[in-house]
Amino acid sequence: MGRWQPGAQQRLQQAALELFAERGFDATTVADIAARAGVTERTFFRYYADKREVLFDGEDGLQRAFVDAVAAAPAGASTTAVIDAALAAGGGFLEQRRSADRHFPRIRAEILAANDALQERELLKMAKLAGALAGALRTRGLDELSARMTAELIVAVFVTAFTRWIGPDEDRGLVDLQLDGLTALRAVLTD
Amino acid sequence: MGRWQPGAQQRLQQAALELFAERGFDATTVADIAARAGVTERTFFRYYADKREVLFDGEDGLQRAFVDAVAAAPAGASTTAVIDAALAAGGGFLEQRRSADRHFPRIRAEILAANDALQERELLKMAKLAGALAGALRTRGLDELSARMTAELIVAVFVTAFTRWIGPDEDRGLVDLQLDGLTALRAVLTD
Repeated sequence: MGRWQPGAQQRLQQAALELFAERGFDATTVADIAARAGVTERTFFRYYADKREVLFDGEDGLQRAFVDAVAAAPAGASTTAVIDAALAAGGGFLEQRRSADRHFPRIRAEILAANDALQERELLKMAKLAGALAGALRTRGLDELSARMTAELIVAVFVTAFTRWIGPDEDRGLVDLQLDGLTALRAVLTD
Repeated sequence: MGRWQPGAQQRLQQAALELFAERGFDATTVADIAARAGVTERTFFRYYADKREVLFDGEDGLQRAFVDAVAAAPAGASTTAVIDAALAAGGGFLEQRRSADRHFPRIRAEILAANDALQERELLKMAKLAGALAGALRTRGLDELSARMTAELIVAVFVTAFTRWIGPDEDRGLVDLQLDGLTALRAVLTD
């Protein structure tokens, strides 16, 4: 078996998701995942540090999409325009990823919902995203408070739209649902 | 030693905080905490399930202050008025608690900052607060999306103001700092 196995990572992810859904996260081992994916445990560890990380693959990419969009917005852009650009980039990143497997994010969310430790890991990921966004906004010249509130707003809009997006009967896009949330937030704050 | 010990809970909290700050959270045992507080381990477990819970005492009270204020707002109140009432009640609750020991929340925050698992526990607490607030807002007749966005907004304003409030050089009140955050958020959304 060569070092490079075409599709091994995708097969590992698919196998992990199936097993977590069938047996529960705690009852699934790395050996189980590797066996179902048809690779060795050693191959598993070439891609992931542990079984939990299979569920948090792509985290860096998502954060980069959000943060790069904030940094790339034109110098004179309004904060509203920067928010829109960040949400379009972050939401767009996940829309593209999902096109490979429509059910992945919903099944993943169900696995997370059944396990407090995984939920906490997800919350920490969102807190880190907010921290990174606040940093990028300060770099643009926003004061500390506005940067922090704007970052929290972006993450709140993203998370709320994401939860709707993966619902079984939702056919709208994530970016579209984010705009919906932003509109609702504006209405609430001016009510 | 009688079952009821005046001040035992306060002494346990004080002892735990001192030891966590001195030795770190992981290196401190329940036996250490009980010994420093001058009580038995059995007394410790009468008040707390484990050493971690000493840091999350009062969680229910905070959530109740926020949620009760949402429920108690007059029937025709605008969403903005409900947000203000919730923040005044939640912030006011913590201001009153802090009057007993000004340094407690800052020392607690430093202990949390040094420990990922404690940070995750704190994030879960805030996520639960947002969930409870969204429920109370739906009960008032807000649609699902507005309730969720409003709840996330309240928690974001609270958390951001709280972080400023416990800063060493901050002398403004938590409720006042929350109003500041709300103003910044409004400015950002209309920029």
